[in-house]
Formats: sequence, structure tokens, C-alpha cells
Amino acid sequence: MPSLITLTTDFGIQDHYVGVLKAVLLSIAGDARLIDISHQIPPQDIMAGAWVVRNSAMHFPPGSVHLVVVDPGVGTRRKPIAIKIEDQYFVGPDNGIFSLIADQYKYEGVELTNPDFWRPDQSKTFHGRDIFAPVAAHLANGVAMSELGKPIEKLETYRWAVPISDKDGVQGWILHIDHFGNLISNIPESMIREAGANANLKIYVGNTIFDTIVSTFGDVPDGEPAAYIGSSGVLEIAINKGDAREMLGVEKGAQISIVVQK
Amino acid sequence: MPSLITLTTDFGIQDHYVGVLKAVLLSIAGDARLIDISHQIPPQDIMAGAWVVRNSAMHFPPGSVHLVVVDPGVGTRRKPIAIKIEDQYFVGPDNGIFSLIADQYKYEGVELTNPDFWRPDQSKTFHGRDIFAPVAAHLANGVAMSELGKPIEKLETYRWAVPISDKDGVQGWILHIDHFGNLISNIPESMIREAGANANLKIYVGNTIFDTIVSTFGDVPDGEPAAYIGSSGVLEIAINKGDAREMLGVEKGAQISIVVQK
Amino acid sequence: MPSLITLTTDFGIQDHYVGVLKAVLLSIAGDARLIDISHQIPPQDIMAGAWVVRNSAMHFPPGSVHLVVVDPGVGTRRKPIAIKIEDQYFVGPDNGIFSLIADQYKYEGVELTNPDFWRPDQSKTFHGRDIFAPVAAHLANGVAMSELGKPIEKLETYRWAVPISDKDGVQGWILHIDHFGNLISNIPESMIREAGANANLKIYVGNTIFDTIVSTFGDVPDGEPAAYIGSSGVLEIAINKGDAREMLGVEKGAQISIVVQK
Repeated sequence: MPSLITLTTDFGIQDHYVGVLKAVLLSIAGDARLIDISHQIPPQDIMAGAWVVRNSAMHFPPGSVHLVVVDPGVGTRRKPIAIKIEDQYFVGPDNGIFSLIADQYKYEGVELTNPDFWRPDQSKTFHGRDIFAPVAAHLANGVAMSELGKPIEKLETYRWAVPISDKDGVQGWILHIDHFGNLISNIPESMIREAGANANLKIYVGNTIFDTIVSTFGDVPDGEPAAYIGSSGVLEIAINKGDAREMLGVEKGAQISIVVQK
Repeated sequence: MPSLITLTTDFGIQDHYVGVLKAVLLSIAGDARLIDISHQIPPQDIMAGAWVVRNSAMHFPPGSVHLVVVDPGVGTRRKPIAIKIEDQYFVGPDNGIFSLIADQYKYEGVELTNPDFWRPDQSKTFHGRDIFAPVAAHLANGVAMSELGKPIEKLETYRWAVPISDKDGVQGWILHIDHFGNLISNIPESMIREAGANANLKIYVGNTIFDTIVSTFGDVPDGEPAAYIGSSGVLEIAINKGDAREMLGVEKGAQISIVVQK
Repeated sequence: MPSLITLTTDFGIQDHYVGVLKAVLLSIAGDARLIDISHQIPPQDIMAGAWVVRNSAMHFPPGSVHLVVVDPGVGTRRKPIAIKIEDQYFVGPDNGIFSLIADQYKYEGVELTNPDFWRPDQSKTFHGRDIFAPVAAHLANGVAMSELGKPIEKLETYRWAVPISDKDGVQGWILHIDHFGNLISNIPESMIREAGANANLKIYVGNTIFDTIVSTFGDVPDGEPAAYIGSSGVLEIAINKGDAREMLGVEKGAQISIVVQK
């Protein structure tokens, strides 16, 4: 079966940039299958890119290569890297974009120091084309990760706000707002269970208070807000058949608090 | 030749949702070809999705599988289904999304009741990933539709406004406004012909009146409005080298009337 | 290896139009690989389309077919054409969309006059579906270009503003603004070198003056503007970790001047 390369970038879909990445990939790995994850990561938003990588990559067949280019520091001293997590490969800048997935799994990695696997000339502003895409294609062709550069011990981490749990409840925040306007928090189901999900609890976000966690937004009437564990395994807030961001006036980064009632 | 699966959703292209659908499809049907139709159906807009399905699916090679997920009722009692029309297969929720295409063709279908062809655990909010994509992939692999569940007799229909024709003319409405701002009505060419297209007629939409149906918008001067039969076989209104929605101030749902002059 | 067809259009990604192009392509060239370059060329913006074609096509493997449909004159007297540049094929309307690439390379071409390679019926408004996609698919299948129609001598050119160079410097303009808000000029690196890039120079664009060309935007502090030679080989203006269009208030078409200091 031909190898599989996924693409996640903040390049948008109006310019030639994504097309050029694909041209370079196919020039080196002619029979690779290319799968777009997203090119609409908000420009230079490493956190948003890390969220998409965390939620998509591990669903792909073993041996897939994930090319991830959200790279505000292109041409400066941030390291180009390749890492391996279970049977998945990742190529991109070491700027925190792999933080969320590397938090959950064991990984090994290399800094991309071997120019034999790059385009002959490298621009200062388009390493996606000149370094990352060629390396991803060579990985898809079966080149060993160890040939690409020298091992690295530890990835750069991004200052992620981690939810804080104590006997009174959990403090978290809205990590992402999706296309439907659903508010996605950084509070995993396990943390709620530990806090006593079956106990009386109240959830505070913006000006809205929830008394209960339902199993899906479809359980509340149309136009009503619901708190539930979403498909990514974390607490989400949605409006049934509506847009929670708009209707609740809550933005990315807002606090969300779970208070256990004594 | 590898099997072909098309994707039509309202997931947008910023999140990981489409990527996850593709990962699930490829994990089950490893050599299927994936073709994006659209992921920009307006959120939860069943009518817009039905229009896209109606206009795209039957152009594909026989044996194609069309995965369609516009699913505001996910997790509630709407049925997950698979249907077959001529040599094309469709998988999605039974909420009217297949209304427009099922109006035009004979179909047979099943309710998806056999969990053997689903992901082992199903979320309440992402049946695209957990039920529809796996089923589409199994269909692409050659699983018989009859294995997926029990036959259904009749699809849910959506209250579509159908154009009304009498001796004085035709009353219709703007079903869709496309990317170019062209106003696309629900009045088919045949209905205009029956009303006497060669007779004197007037077409009223918003504040604009047309005396004639031209063969294409290129037949009128730049910046002028034109009424013509578009590529989908229905009456359309466009501005030559302009945006009719903007320039005529007409929105989706607006009335369009054809009056035959005596 | 299966043949490769790229797609560049102004169709947007909300409607069924792109899906239909792909269906037609795959119905004729069943094993072709389809690669989206962009469907978000601004509606009817031939200049923007020409820029994307110029920057993407020649990176693809030899024998690729580039289907390019930005076609405001569909159904009127503009010619449908196919051209060949080095080992790349192009299919689309002769309206200037191939101007920028044809400026840089030798080409040969034909007007598409042979309906044997079209869909049996042609609409007046969707030649992408009815003429261009079928022709592209037949080219991908190995049909000789000469079978498609009669040779043409010269492409239509679009009135492109070319940069003007004299002993005092260079006058150019902003040809394109990309997804990141970077301002991309029509001044190639070579013209700057001839003007004396190592000499003292000043660059004027909007209300901003630059004293120097840096090697990348990453060389200036966050939030500061930079002038540099971008990945497309022309002078670009960016804000490090910012949006130059927004922050400098400069739009497409704005003048950019390089003045050599005596």
C-alpha cells in the first residue's frame, strides 16, 4: 500500500503555498497519498495547531507521516525536527506544535541537520517547501529517522495552561472553539470523574451556569446550552442547533470552573 | 480500480474533524480514494447539503460511496441510513439531506442497525467518525448494503418549497446562492418551457424585472443582470462579472415569479 | 505511476462545482491523481489566478496536467485552450490566466476545437465541467495535444503592470497579498541587484520607509516590518509575527518604490 502523508498548516487555501508543498512531496515520494488535515490553522497559532495534531494524528494507519507547518519562527533558531510516536511520524518546527501530543505518548526524535534530505537551496522563509516537505517525503519513502539528523532529548514545550484540580473542584479554560461555535475546554473526563461527577456540581463559564453534565447537546431543547463530554474526551459547551460562542459571548481563553457542591 | 468515497459535511476545514473522518475511512478501506465535495455546507443547513448532494453525486463513476454528514440531530432519534440510487451509495443521517436526490430517482435503503460495522465505542456527538465513516468504508470494501441493517421503506422528507405552476406563470424561490453570488432558483427548465418560454414573459425577483431569458450571463453587458438556465438545469439570476446577491440585494428564500404575458 | 491533474479555480469550496469537476475527471481518467492547488482564487480575478499558476505549476512532476478555471468570459468568444510548457500541460480559458507563466517559458498551444474530447452537451456557463475537465482528463490519459484542436500562435496577454527600472531605482507595485497579510511585489530580485542592492537604498510603500533589505522577517523584532526577497523570488514586505496588510494599511495594487541613494 502506498505511504500516507498528512498535511496540517496555517497556509490558508488561497495562495500557492499548499500546492507547492504537495508538488515537492510528490516529486520525491511519487506514490504517496496526501491527506489534508487542515490548512486553516489561524496564522501562527501554535496552540490551535497542536490541538488539531493531538486529535487527528493517532487515528491514521501505522506508518503515516504527519507534516505540520505552523512556523512563525521560520528562518530563526527554532529547530526543525522529526519525531516518532508509536507508529506515526511527525515533521515540523520544534516550537510547541507537538506539545499536546507528546504529553500523552512516549516519543523519540531528531533535529533535522542532514541537508542531503532537503531541497538543494533553502529560502529563509519557506522551510515547509525546502526542508519539512522533502524530509516528510523521504520518511514516507522509508528513510530511517536516524539518517535525518542527531537525536534530541526533549521537545520545546509551550506554556499550556493545565487545568487545576483540588477538593473544591476544577479550574480550566477554553482551549479551542470549533467551526460550530462549540466551546472546548482543557478539562478531561477523568478529572471530572475524580472531582466527583456524580456529586452535585456547578459549571461556570462566562455568565452561564450549568447544574448538570448531559450526555450530548441533543439532550437539551433547541437553542439551550449544554455541558457534556465531547468527542475529544474533554468537557465541551454547546448550544443545541446553535452557536455557543456567539450566543454565550465566550471567547478562546475564557475560564471554566467546576465547583463540587458540598 | 480502487473504490471511491466522496465527503460532504458541514464540519468546516479548520478543525480536526475532517481529518479524523479520513483517518477512519483509510483505516478500514486502505486503498479507497477520498474526494472532498464540500466541508463548507453552512453549519446544520440540511437544505444546502441536499442541494450539493443532488448536483454532484450522480456524476461520479459507478460504485462510488457518498459520505454525507450534516447532522444537527446527532445522538437523538434520527436514523442513520445507507441508500443506493442506481450505482451510487450514500451514507448519512435520515434527516432530509437525501430528499432532493431521492425525489429524482428510485432508491432502496437500510437503517444502520448492525454495530459490527461501526467503531467499537460510539460517542453521542460524532457519529460521522463512529458510525457513518466506518459504514462508508465497509461499503467501499464491498460489504453488501443488506448486511448493514434492516430495510427502510421511505426517507424522511424535508419541507421543500416546490415551485407552483398555473396558467398565469410559475411561483418559485431562491434555493441557493453560490460562491459567485448567483441566485439559483427551484424552477426547472421544463416548467418554464411548459409555461411557454417562447411567449412573452416577465420574471420578478427582489426589485428587478426581466423581460427575457438569455442563454448565458455573458450575453448581457458587464455589470448587468441576466436570467438564464444554469448548469444545474434551473433558472438562475447572475450579474455579468458581478455579484447578484450583493448588487440586487436578494437573499436565499426570496420569491421569484415568472408571469406569462397575455 | 498514475497521471497527475492539479486544479486551480475560483469556484470556492461551498458549492458542488469542484466536486463535479472531479467527478468528470475521474469518469474519464479513472486512475488520475487529483491535487487541489486552490479553489479560493477571488471570483473572476484573473491576475490572482495567474500568480498562483506561475508559482506552483513548475514544481510538479513531469507530465502533470494543470486544470485552471477562472473564467469570467465563459460562454463568450474567449478561446478554450491547452498549452504545454516544458513537460507540464495546462488547460483553461485564454484570458490572461497563463500570462505570467508564459512570460517566463517557451510554450506551444492549441485552441480546443475538437468536441470529440468534450462532454456531449455543453452548457453556456460551466465549461469547466463540459470542456476543460474532459480535455484535462484526456491529456492525462495520454491523448496528444495536437488532437485537441488547431495550433495557436500567441496567448492573450493581460495588461500586467511591469516594474520600471532606471538609474534612480525601481517602480513596482503590490501584485498579491497572501494569507498571512504579506505584501508581495512584482519586483524580482535580479532587478534589485541591477539597481545596486548593496548600494544605499530606500524602499517606500504606503507610509513606511525601509533602509535595508533583510534576509527574512525573522531578522527584525516581533511586530516590526521587514523588506526581504521572499520564497517566490520577488521583494516582499512582512511584519514579523504580524499582518502587514492590516498594520501598514497597504492594499493590492499599491505602489512600491526603490530609490538608490547617491
